Amino acid sequence: MRVLRANVQTGEIRYEGVPENWKHFGGRALAARILLDEVPPACDPLGPYNKLVWAPGLLVGHTLSSSDRISIGAKSPLTGGVKESNAGGSTGVRMAWLRLFALIIEGGPPADGSWRLLVVDKNGARFEAADDLVGLGLIDTGERLFERFNDKIGVSAIGPVGERLYRSAGITHMDNDQHLTRISARGGLGAVMGSKHLKAIVFDFPSANRPEVVDPELFRDASKRYIKALQEHPQTSAGYPLYGTAGMVNLCNTVGGMPTRNFSNGRFEGAEAISGETLHELNKSRNGEVSHACMAGCIIKCSNIYHGSDGEVIVTPLEYETIGMMGSNLGIDDPDVIARLNAVANDLGIDTIDTGAALGVAAEAGLMTFGDGLRALELMEEIREGTPLGRILGNGAALAGKVLGVKRIPAIKGQAMSAYDPRAIKGTGVTYITSPQGADHTCGLTIRSKVDHTNPEGQVELSRDAQYKMAGYDSLGVCIFGGFGMDASIVCDLVNGRYGWDVGIDYLTELGKKSILMEREFNRSAGFTKADDRMPEWMVHEKLPPLDTVFDVPEEEIDSIFD
Amino acid sequence: MRVLRANVQTGEIRYEGVPENWKHFGGRALAARILLDEVPPACDPLGPYNKLVWAPGLLVGHTLSSSDRISIGAKSPLTGGVKESNAGGSTGVRMAWLRLFALIIEGGPPADGSWRLLVVDKNGARFEAADDLVGLGLIDTGERLFERFNDKIGVSAIGPVGERLYRSAGITHMDNDQHLTRISARGGLGAVMGSKHLKAIVFDFPSANRPEVVDPELFRDASKRYIKALQEHPQTSAGYPLYGTAGMVNLCNTVGGMPTRNFSNGRFEGAEAISGETLHELNKSRNGEVSHACMAGCIIKCSNIYHGSDGEVIVTPLEYETIGMMGSNLGIDDPDVIARLNAVANDLGIDTIDTGAALGVAAEAGLMTFGDGLRALELMEEIREGTPLGRILGNGAALAGKVLGVKRIPAIKGQAMSAYDPRAIKGTGVTYITSPQGADHTCGLTIRSKVDHTNPEGQVELSRDAQYKMAGYDSLGVCIFGGFGMDASIVCDLVNGRYGWDVGIDYLTELGKKSILMEREFNRSAGFTKADDRMPEWMVHEKLPPLDTVFDVPEEEIDSIFD
Repeated sequence: MRVLRANVQTGEIRYEGVPENWKHFGGRALAARILLDEVPPACDPLGPYNKLVWAPGLLVGHTLSSSDRISIGAKSPLTGGVKESNAGGSTGVRMAWLRLFALIIEGGPPADGSWRLLVVDKNGARFEAADDLVGLGLIDTGERLFERFNDKIGVSAIGPVGERLYRSAGITHMDNDQHLTRISARGGLGAVMGSKHLKAIVFDFPSANRPEVVDPELFRDASKRYIKALQEHPQTSAGYPLYGTAGMVNLCNTVGGMPTRNFSNGRFEGAEAISGETLHELNKSRNGEVSHACMAGCIIKCSNIYHGSDGEVIVTPLEYETIGMMGSNLGIDDPDVIARLNAVANDLGIDTIDTGAALGVAAEAGLMTFGDGLRALELMEEIREGTPLGRILGNGAALAGKVLGVKRIPAIKGQAMSAYDPRAIKGTGVTYITSPQGADHTCGLTIRSKVDHTNPEGQVELSRDAQYKMAGYDSLGVCIFGGFGMDASIVCDLVNGRYGWDVGIDYLTELGKKSILMEREFNRSAGFTKADDRMPEWMVHEKLPPLDTVFDVPEEEIDSIFD
Repeated sequence: MRVLRANVQTGEIRYEGVPENWKHFGGRALAARILLDEVPPACDPLGPYNKLVWAPGLLVGHTLSSSDRISIGAKSPLTGGVKESNAGGSTGVRMAWLRLFALIIEGGPPADGSWRLLVVDKNGARFEAADDLVGLGLIDTGERLFERFNDKIGVSAIGPVGERLYRSAGITHMDNDQHLTRISARGGLGAVMGSKHLKAIVFDFPSANRPEVVDPELFRDASKRYIKALQEHPQTSAGYPLYGTAGMVNLCNTVGGMPTRNFSNGRFEGAEAISGETLHELNKSRNGEVSHACMAGCIIKCSNIYHGSDGEVIVTPLEYETIGMMGSNLGIDDPDVIARLNAVANDLGIDTIDTGAALGVAAEAGLMTFGDGLRALELMEEIREGTPLGRILGNGAALAGKVLGVKRIPAIKGQAMSAYDPRAIKGTGVTYITSPQGADHTCGLTIRSKVDHTNPEGQVELSRDAQYKMAGYDSLGVCIFGGFGMDASIVCDLVNGRYGWDVGIDYLTELGKKSILMEREFNRSAGFTKADDRMPEWMVHEKLPPLDTVFDVPEEEIDSIFD
């Protein structure tokens, strides 16, 4: 395995050995380690001293179900702190097959202001001109690249919003199956890529080349136990394959935590119309296949497919977060509209969570009426066109709220919350405020725990356990749903089998803990303090109907969560 | 002396005695003390837990030359830290004559969303409805209030930009002389007032009522020495009366620190056309009086008056900061245009420094051509109208730069620099980054020191001394130019004469130091660290022509400045 280092500014490309202190990390933990070692924490996130890291998780490369995720890391222009945003797709597996331990993008834009494309294949890496791609949406970008190279390449690219340095721009992973668009959406990593004038990276490697496994028997045995567990778990064998994450609508609405009209209510009267169950029936009636795998070998296949009334695919997947943030949060109960909003966001390469939150804030500022889907679609076009209003909205809810003079801004560390109101699901609220990543459900969601989510007691422990676990999975490259099939011994056996290490039963938690500690160290040097680990003031004081709860987890407990 | 406390939300108004630990403070230091004692540092600056403090300096009330300044303090929505913004005018003296030690505005807006006016007279204080004033510029607001009350009132009010919570909205002090418009411009205090739906405060007290002086002879003697020194100093007897602060243009341009085209050059080829000397001749030729006093009794009279070609006043004063930020910084060398930009800003109640910087950033983003004064005036109208672009620009350079994707943003702690490029005037650069107030020349300007301003050595000491001194003067209510006539013994005698205290020769510096330490304590609790005391990255790396200097004062020295 090698580290590939490419400097867009100087054009220099170098392969290096893996430093000793990086070898035991992958994915999220590796991104944190590299940032700590190489990026000045106080640097301008959109300046030449920030770096952008592609880091496959430790288990990536074996097309083991739900275990090939790619992490992208950088200092975030949205939060000003450390950022890791992982995704499925085929980028991770392709990197592993190219024997890339990590890819590090460095430097500012080329002196002449031109745009670059990085091409990596089995013979090496090179920069090519990408000026012909500038301004293109992701769909056109992908088509041009599949044409220019071949239809077996994998691509990580930014859309026009990344080029314009919008702080909610993501990095999109595509391959020859046009359905397979996955986005490292959160934290504005697309703006970091745009700041370096890097439009896309092409991973050109068509044939399987699995990494060596030190103890194949142990690995194979653990894999089998894992797959069996996934096949037996009701959630991964029935829930997700049928409804995707959209199945969360009913659960979250029931517990009163469904963001509705800019987080002014926790229950949406139109939830039924946008629930996973409704979407499933709708898509079946439109003669669509209902889901597919986002990573080769995945047996869960949570990636639902949304068809229009003409039977054509509008978007895939239509995730719960998007339904929550661009649906109920905007008072929109028409799934066709939500799917179209999502499709525009995907073509632009923008985070649907921060953008949905920004539109909610815009509605509160009087720029749209809640429930007006056509207006929401118009606002997405403003974002596409880069009008002043589009720029405001494309920079995410926190900035948009400031510029528009809105007081009810659902954001922490500058990043919008996802679709779980922290007043009704307090453990997830603790994750939002204490995660070094800014408000992000993927850092430790607690809604599936069998607790009273409105009771502040015990939520800090619940969140901490979830955060360590998730940071562990994010470092292994394992999807959150893969976690339904992994117990501690399976994790140990997979890692020990793959690497010949001798990790113990606490490994997953310890790996996650190390990752979070490194991230906190980075943030501390970047200027973060406990004052950043706070819920927006209005959520501490303004009751959320219908349960009429506020966020009341004690600050002392919050401040000692990682002690 | 009493403290007046008025809660806009509940309508409650209360007079209270002065707490023991406030008694020895005034102005800036008092504002810091009150904020530390009463405002949660982590609160939402535009939420109900922030407070807005009017605090006259310790020497205010005697119409002693240049010594009646009013400080306004709050947690700043622009910087997120402590803020004090002082101004001349008659607000301070009126408060002293009303025996108001401090005025504290509390609470959020009234529940019905209506707007209030606070009226203070010798009989007490009351809220009145102000909905008829909403949306009015400062000129119309003043006229309506002088009509509604009488032409002897003093007013502190916000314009439409404060109502809309723009983060560069100030609070404007007016009295019956329409020329006498002074603004507590920096840090977005007008937005704090707007967040509470308080449109204006009327100080209705027409007759002189000087505070008691414990040792009149000592006070009188020190006053005489002070006035004599002002009369003898070339700067206060000739420089400022003739040219106002506009006299700074030639000095700052000579040392290569005049912000030009968004801080891309330190020397402006059009400087001569906008210099204090040119303005003086121009105004004389237009038959105008050239300057006046902004506070009764001031013998410096630095407040220059700018007349149009028809002999009508366009604006007064036309300060150096405005000439630098809305002139050279925008590449504009037509003083009539700069004066008109300033007049619009005054009517809106917006900071010309942060707005000039925002326009410079907008020019860099391609929204205007440098030098195009008509376009700059159009952009000011966008701000007035509250269009999306106007909202972007009205929120100051730091936010505007982020939304517009500009990398060269001249701001620190979210607040724009004033018109001294810190790469050429490094002591002032140290003040910009280390002042708890964000980038602000009034916190410790070093340009008049006889040092090599481009040499990094000794700049930290220079800045520290200047910061302590200025924080001292800001706490006394003494204008920076009054400082030309005050030595340590005059300060002691004035304070000891007025209060019967026994302060020593280090009093001014000690007072300033206490103020800064309180401010830093507030900021620390609000989440500030040394990572906030940093120059924008590009100013550390990008050379400023024509001297080709970068900001290179060592970080270790910077971090220990107040140790």
